[in-house]
Amino acid sequence: MSRNHPREHGSELFIGLDVGGSKVLAAEIDADGHLVTTALRITPGRRVPVPLVEDALTEAVDEVAAGRPISGVGLAAAGFVDAAGERVMFAPHLPWRSDPTRSRLEARWGVPVAMDNDANCAARAELALGAAAGTQSALMITLGTGIGGGLIVDGKLRRGRNGMSGEFGHMQVVPDGHPCECGRAGCWEQYASGNALVRYARSRLDSPSYTQQTSLEEACGGLPEQLTGPMIAEAGRAGDRLAQRAFTVVGEWLGVGIANLVAAFDPEVVVVGGGVSAAGDLLLDPARAALRDSLVAASEREIPDVVPARFGPEAGVVGAAAMIRDAVAARG
Amino acid sequence: MSRNHPREHGSELFIGLDVGGSKVLAAEIDADGHLVTTALRITPGRRVPVPLVEDALTEAVDEVAAGRPISGVGLAAAGFVDAAGERVMFAPHLPWRSDPTRSRLEARWGVPVAMDNDANCAARAELALGAAAGTQSALMITLGTGIGGGLIVDGKLRRGRNGMSGEFGHMQVVPDGHPCECGRAGCWEQYASGNALVRYARSRLDSPSYTQQTSLEEACGGLPEQLTGPMIAEAGRAGDRLAQRAFTVVGEWLGVGIANLVAAFDPEVVVVGGGVSAAGDLLLDPARAALRDSLVAASEREIPDVVPARFGPEAGVVGAAAMIRDAVAARG
Amino acid sequence: MSRNHPREHGSELFIGLDVGGSKVLAAEIDADGHLVTTALRITPGRRVPVPLVEDALTEAVDEVAAGRPISGVGLAAAGFVDAAGERVMFAPHLPWRSDPTRSRLEARWGVPVAMDNDANCAARAELALGAAAGTQSALMITLGTGIGGGLIVDGKLRRGRNGMSGEFGHMQVVPDGHPCECGRAGCWEQYASGNALVRYARSRLDSPSYTQQTSLEEACGGLPEQLTGPMIAEAGRAGDRLAQRAFTVVGEWLGVGIANLVAAFDPEVVVVGGGVSAAGDLLLDPARAALRDSLVAASEREIPDVVPARFGPEAGVVGAAAMIRDAVAARG
Amino acid sequence: MSRNHPREHGSELFIGLDVGGSKVLAAEIDADGHLVTTALRITPGRRVPVPLVEDALTEAVDEVAAGRPISGVGLAAAGFVDAAGERVMFAPHLPWRSDPTRSRLEARWGVPVAMDNDANCAARAELALGAAAGTQSALMITLGTGIGGGLIVDGKLRRGRNGMSGEFGHMQVVPDGHPCECGRAGCWEQYASGNALVRYARSRLDSPSYTQQTSLEEACGGLPEQLTGPMIAEAGRAGDRLAQRAFTVVGEWLGVGIANLVAAFDPEVVVVGGGVSAAGDLLLDPARAALRDSLVAASEREIPDVVPARFGPEAGVVGAAAMIRDAVAARG
Repeated sequence: MSRNHPREHGSELFIGLDVGGSKVLAAEIDADGHLVTTALRITPGRRVPVPLVEDALTEAVDEVAAGRPISGVGLAAAGFVDAAGERVMFAPHLPWRSDPTRSRLEARWGVPVAMDNDANCAARAELALGAAAGTQSALMITLGTGIGGGLIVDGKLRRGRNGMSGEFGHMQVVPDGHPCECGRAGCWEQYASGNALVRYARSRLDSPSYTQQTSLEEACGGLPEQLTGPMIAEAGRAGDRLAQRAFTVVGEWLGVGIANLVAAFDPEVVVVGGGVSAAGDLLLDPARAALRDSLVAASEREIPDVVPARFGPEAGVVGAAAMIRDAVAARG
Repeated sequence: MSRNHPREHGSELFIGLDVGGSKVLAAEIDADGHLVTTALRITPGRRVPVPLVEDALTEAVDEVAAGRPISGVGLAAAGFVDAAGERVMFAPHLPWRSDPTRSRLEARWGVPVAMDNDANCAARAELALGAAAGTQSALMITLGTGIGGGLIVDGKLRRGRNGMSGEFGHMQVVPDGHPCECGRAGCWEQYASGNALVRYARSRLDSPSYTQQTSLEEACGGLPEQLTGPMIAEAGRAGDRLAQRAFTVVGEWLGVGIANLVAAFDPEVVVVGGGVSAAGDLLLDPARAALRDSLVAASEREIPDVVPARFGPEAGVVGAAAMIRDAVAARG
Repeated sequence: MSRNHPREHGSELFIGLDVGGSKVLAAEIDADGHLVTTALRITPGRRVPVPLVEDALTEAVDEVAAGRPISGVGLAAAGFVDAAGERVMFAPHLPWRSDPTRSRLEARWGVPVAMDNDANCAARAELALGAAAGTQSALMITLGTGIGGGLIVDGKLRRGRNGMSGEFGHMQVVPDGHPCECGRAGCWEQYASGNALVRYARSRLDSPSYTQQTSLEEACGGLPEQLTGPMIAEAGRAGDRLAQRAFTVVGEWLGVGIANLVAAFDPEVVVVGGGVSAAGDLLLDPARAALRDSLVAASEREIPDVVPARFGPEAGVVGAAAMIRDAVAARG
Repeated sequence: MSRNHPREHGSELFIGLDVGGSKVLAAEIDADGHLVTTALRITPGRRVPVPLVEDALTEAVDEVAAGRPISGVGLAAAGFVDAAGERVMFAPHLPWRSDPTRSRLEARWGVPVAMDNDANCAARAELALGAAAGTQSALMITLGTGIGGGLIVDGKLRRGRNGMSGEFGHMQVVPDGHPCECGRAGCWEQYASGNALVRYARSRLDSPSYTQQTSLEEACGGLPEQLTGPMIAEAGRAGDRLAQRAFTVVGEWLGVGIANLVAAFDPEVVVVGGGVSAAGDLLLDPARAALRDSLVAASEREIPDVVPARFGPEAGVVGAAAMIRDAVAARG
């Protein structure tokens, strides 16, 4: 790998590196957040020795650099990253355990490295270049199978004492409610996520109110367990009443939880990303209405906009690059 | 009023001024948070012309200063204060309406003035001199008839876009739950506040499980509507089973809501103040247990301590003085 | 008062007597349930000696009889009536306390007397001559400020061990929900009653979703506490969106509770009476939809019809007359 | 099979036949409810032709009769039985579908046959010979993986319009609560059943409040998914705090649901059977306390006793025999 050369104006190369559960994506990101060149690897898995995993990361970074000097690498890790951004404490699909990953990679590569978890990197992408750009305070909510989050206060991402802020998905919103994978019950992500969307639609397929009036029955071949979020999104856009009802119910829960967070943080904007957010206003309009209805003192304040994220699946790699760009700039 | 003289080391006079719904309290606060001298006035009311109200404030400040030069006045207002700390937007018991109170008082008095709402001033007191001193991140929760709050991130109180952050009491924790004075239902303060404590005890006075076994019946003279929080606290300390059950139920709800906030913020410490917190561990032990049980990834993080506030009813005036002290120091 | 003469075919005089909280209504009811002649008195109150109250009842009965022989009197009492139908155990607005009312009136008047509480008499009216006529099993649900009920199994009204069956309104449907006048919380009648309807509409008057779009604001003169159920019903029929939403929300809760009862009883029909039911399908259509959606094994059973009651405010007096007519017939 | 001979006093042979999901049990039951002789077969399954299944039933009955004349056979079927007791509408593990099972078996065997579903047969056993004997009104609640039930009013089991009364387990007690196998959410059986018990204990195994203080960790070999109800019952009896807490939580929910049913039915006694009830007062004491606390007008009525069932797994076969004994007696 090439060493870091004196930077010339406009020629800096910042690389984002997103290490997820199934794949490693490295990318050169330009100053506007576009992916210039990319390199992809399969995630080696959690039983592979750490050096081999880091070989894969090195290969991906080298492929993107293609011999050019690197100004810095930002690493987005699918796991818990400590408050200092130094260690991966735990990652379900990777071998790092309380591991000083950042400093070792920085030593190995000889370039500045910064590290954060993937949800926070997504928030960094929106803050630097996306839907939260220019704001002082924002909430980033990522809707996938569960809910991830990031917290921006006074213009900076805030990571908390343990690096674990933004776990919005596990606010309890229903006493004795749906059991959650976290071992408790009634967590917000059981009501406002991709899983919630699919569960709602599956449970209503046989309802006398919808039977023979919904295209979802056919979409899943009569097998409710085969029904997926994208099927529901497509049916919803085509006007299917059950699919739209599922987005309304999930969207209303989304808005109720956002109202809780806005009461606590009073941010300027709420950015909603993740796969489910692709449904757009089908999801966000009920969320906005529920936010207005559920927010304390709504008539005496400016209610934050609820906007879709700019970045989709590439949010992590873009935010990782933005993070190292900022870190290098801050060091002068 | 005396003008601000050149400061000599140790001779600075910072005055806190707490303008509440029923009284105005001015106090000289020393560097350790003790009240040195105080002056009290009755709050003139919301139909009195603004200049008359400000005359009362001026009198109270002058009485405390007693001719000495004033280095600054911090004003804690029982109402909404805008994000800039310049205007009182609305105060239920005072005539200010979208009023540039801070700058006008600064002009009138010729000394630096800073302003915030009373819940935030309580948080400032704990941050500067109390239970949150030395921490980078903390939540301040004030339990009175409802719940007030303050949010400390990276060592500073954060006030939000509208100056309305910290409205923790209106997180919805029960769908279709207790109606709240705010016009919605299921708000946290309906389950974890002084009002919740009293309501629980009242409703169980006639329960076959407690009748003739609780001293509360006698304490309220057989009239449940006469039962008060202090009666329940006293009975609880004396071992009354219904009173203790009331604190356990309210404490568990307190812990559940704290877990929601900790999941979102990941703070170092949670400070609980306000009148109900005088019950101490009778309230806080169930809250701590519920926090451990309800917090996501509890076993993989440092769980914040839940501690009683240092300051009681004088928290507002202490925090107001701390605020102006900091503001003057920051201006150099 | 005339004594009971040998009955001639078609000439029997059965009198219903409804002793409510504010008035006493006696009426001759014909075999089709029509009121032929009536007499009205003011309820004397609970501090008046029992004999004086019974004088008022006697006067009302005599006025209706007008010298004709009486075949029997049915008494509907606004209070708890014991399992045997002999005693009024407690009546909030009347002086009877564990009082053998039935036998004393029977002795005084020299005619057969039968007695039950008013909600059960309403159910008897519907069973004998109204919406439940000809059914073997039915639920009667009376929606007023709260919820009353009656239970018909195998063709007969069933009164339970204490004469207290049919207290459907106090099923708990929300854990830690709305406080109820009964001292507990989350009771069904807090969500599906006239009070629930009014509370919903009041709380939304200021919602940004409805303000300036609802006629209710004007109907109550801008004073939410002056808003009443009839105002909401009228606005709903005229198409007001907030009023209709209030009926939808209350109707859905009505249907959820009905589904609970149908799962337990499996009746043929559900009859909904009381003042709120005057709204008709505005209320009942959402209830029917929620019943279909909430009822276990809905697709494998005949779902009971949810129908409006035949009788309105006169249900008690009609049912009381039907009760004594049946009792006399049963004795041969 | 022997035909029905003229009955001699004391010599009648009534056979109960319980056709469950995994086995067929036939038994001669004496007048006191004891099993005199039994015969067991494996349930053939739902894809086997109906005649073959009925051959198995015939064999079991013949084995018990051993050549003696049979006075009648009572059949308890694990499925939906219609209101007339003539047809099995649906049985998940058997081939009957809207099948006139009773009359065909009666014709084949030449003896009187009566039929009901298994939960109702359990209630019949308790009514005839067990914990509800001598009562006019009772609720039978069977706690297994879910909740089954039976409804006794005025001395008789009441089966409802569709033969589906007693589905107490699917009352909705939590809005948006735990998803239920029935396709809805928040059903009572998700909170007060064997499944609820196991889920609670599993979810708390890793709680900081219990870890290293509970024997359940060892009982399940560190694998929460291996934890079973009997393990929890045993640990609870031995004083394990987590196991006892699980029974308390489930017992309280049991009591809340019983209170709902008692408010509606006002019965003399509530009988709790099924596997979970073997825990006895560990489960029933919290249920009794919650019933007292949750029941409307508890202080003005006789609260029904909550008692354990007399019969365990053999409740179905005993009740089936009692049913045919009564039916033959009624025919004279």
